[in-house]
Amino acid sequence: MKRIFDISEPDRDIIASLREKIDNLTKPKGSLGQLEEIATQIGWIQQSLNPELCKPHNILFAADHGILDEGVSVSPKEVTLQQLLHFGRGGAGINFLCDQHGFELVLVDAGVDSPDPMPKGILNMKLRRGTRNFLHEAAMTHEEFEKGIDCGAQVVDKVYARGCNIVSFGEMGSGNTSSSSMWMHYFTGIGLDRCVGAGAGLAKSGVQHKFEVLSRARDNYQGDASPESIMAWFGGYELVMAVGGMLRAAELGMIIIVDGFIMTNCILAASRLYPNVLLYAIFGHQGDESGHKAVLDYLGAKPLLNLSLRLGEGSGAVCAYPIIQSAVKMINEMDSFRNVPVTKYF
Amino acid sequence: MKRIFDISEPDRDIIASLREKIDNLTKPKGSLGQLEEIATQIGWIQQSLNPELCKPHNILFAADHGILDEGVSVSPKEVTLQQLLHFGRGGAGINFLCDQHGFELVLVDAGVDSPDPMPKGILNMKLRRGTRNFLHEAAMTHEEFEKGIDCGAQVVDKVYARGCNIVSFGEMGSGNTSSSSMWMHYFTGIGLDRCVGAGAGLAKSGVQHKFEVLSRARDNYQGDASPESIMAWFGGYELVMAVGGMLRAAELGMIIIVDGFIMTNCILAASRLYPNVLLYAIFGHQGDESGHKAVLDYLGAKPLLNLSLRLGEGSGAVCAYPIIQSAVKMINEMDSFRNVPVTKYF
Repeated sequence: MKRIFDISEPDRDIIASLREKIDNLTKPKGSLGQLEEIATQIGWIQQSLNPELCKPHNILFAADHGILDEGVSVSPKEVTLQQLLHFGRGGAGINFLCDQHGFELVLVDAGVDSPDPMPKGILNMKLRRGTRNFLHEAAMTHEEFEKGIDCGAQVVDKVYARGCNIVSFGEMGSGNTSSSSMWMHYFTGIGLDRCVGAGAGLAKSGVQHKFEVLSRARDNYQGDASPESIMAWFGGYELVMAVGGMLRAAELGMIIIVDGFIMTNCILAASRLYPNVLLYAIFGHQGDESGHKAVLDYLGAKPLLNLSLRLGEGSGAVCAYPIIQSAVKMINEMDSFRNVPVTKYF
Repeated sequence: MKRIFDISEPDRDIIASLREKIDNLTKPKGSLGQLEEIATQIGWIQQSLNPELCKPHNILFAADHGILDEGVSVSPKEVTLQQLLHFGRGGAGINFLCDQHGFELVLVDAGVDSPDPMPKGILNMKLRRGTRNFLHEAAMTHEEFEKGIDCGAQVVDKVYARGCNIVSFGEMGSGNTSSSSMWMHYFTGIGLDRCVGAGAGLAKSGVQHKFEVLSRARDNYQGDASPESIMAWFGGYELVMAVGGMLRAAELGMIIIVDGFIMTNCILAASRLYPNVLLYAIFGHQGDESGHKAVLDYLGAKPLLNLSLRLGEGSGAVCAYPIIQSAVKMINEMDSFRNVPVTKYF
């Protein structure tokens, strides 16, 4: 049942040709900054001097969390289901962003605490009606973890079959920054206090309470400290599916746009299983959640945007898409000094 | 001949209603960060709870600089004309960005050192074949300065007549960061060493030489230290036209997207004549030119992007446009908690 991924490093031979092409575009060398870096990365991934972006998708996994019983979020459990349904009708934050940038939005019930069947248009991959409370026990079983990885990979297979070669992942799940903070703490070694933040809007006292709950959860952890055990114990069905989706996307040579705090910790976790997954990642946004900058710095990542977003849903990744488009347009459409009468002076 | 502008402060009464509308959109309060601030600013400028962006234009002024004789730039004088012609044919950096984001590109010869008539499609507003060398004398006369302000305003009148309500300004002019550094130094009081940078790509020794030339130019300055005198003495026909354009845009209630180091110093200069111009400004990009962060901090500005661009041409402003579009889509298209079954919990 365990899914194995084969994530290779793209051939580096093409990088010199990409740099040479970019350096000969009609601009001072290096003057398009991160656009040049992104164009090089995408050309390298696609092994092409004329890379292209096809059919972008934002895959949004939703699930509930047993840890919510400990009062770690201002967001009540009912909001997970309500927002998932709201995404399906349109009118939420992620909807206008997907509409603006031509993204298809794929909605997945990864484990929402609702007995009712989901409306058409929401994929049913419910592993359970919410995770267990990781203050007292593992949030999910090992079998659920492996199934979650596989489900995430299956969704990516679907969008890849539609011709998509660039994908972002989003999430909805009241309480899920608690899981992310635990993952960050274990996978980076950064002190738990620096990994815990306000989530959807906790006041200072709420953040302190959340920190205390998570500290106790750490004391109670009984796993073997393997990446799989950390992910399963501290949970998040939607997070595990995102990890599976990222791994499959990288295996298929797709570009992964990483959203904010939660998705950054998902790709960090994914990289503990398969380090090469990071080669396929473009970091979209540095958000306001306390700890995000620290985990980005740990990964050596410089996100494209820093707009103080903290919405989730994949919003920071989708918002960054036009910058990635600019990079691809640059390498495909700008003239070379070789072809136009402009002095190359640098 | 002196053009007077009447730049009013929009009525602040609408701001409470804008905030109330944004706070009731289906998201945690404040979770769309800078998008919320931009939507509030645009709604305030337009006095509307449903603001809109119409026919964006990037107006690019090109001119040459007498100070170039002192070896203050890696970019030779011929490049100003070559690049202006190149913009007219398409294939430069600003062309693909304007194409991507639906901007009309307006090209203006503000003072290029060329005897030949410009091709069709480039507005002829040449004040002179380049400014004088401000190491020894004023870069332009007072009459040229006033005419430059008026020319910039006239170009904005043209695009406004086409239905444009959002405009960015770009420049091309070998040597023009020298003028910008002088303006910054005089208008902020920040030490000249912190205002001088590499421009199109000077090495460290070149930056030191540029600093020494500009220090001597400061010693030789003989004006009355009024904003008009600073602008005229240290020059830039393209810069003065951008100032005039910004003032007219604000007078007409248009939104101004501010590009990088050079345009930030133009709006700083404009604000010394009419402080209210800043109310209409959205800062697009913080570039890599040394001194840009300092002048942005001085203005209390937080640009939307920070992508290490240093191309000029208006590229950072145009690149930021989709973020502004996102803000406007947010306030117009997101559902309110009042209309959908999602618990408002914050």
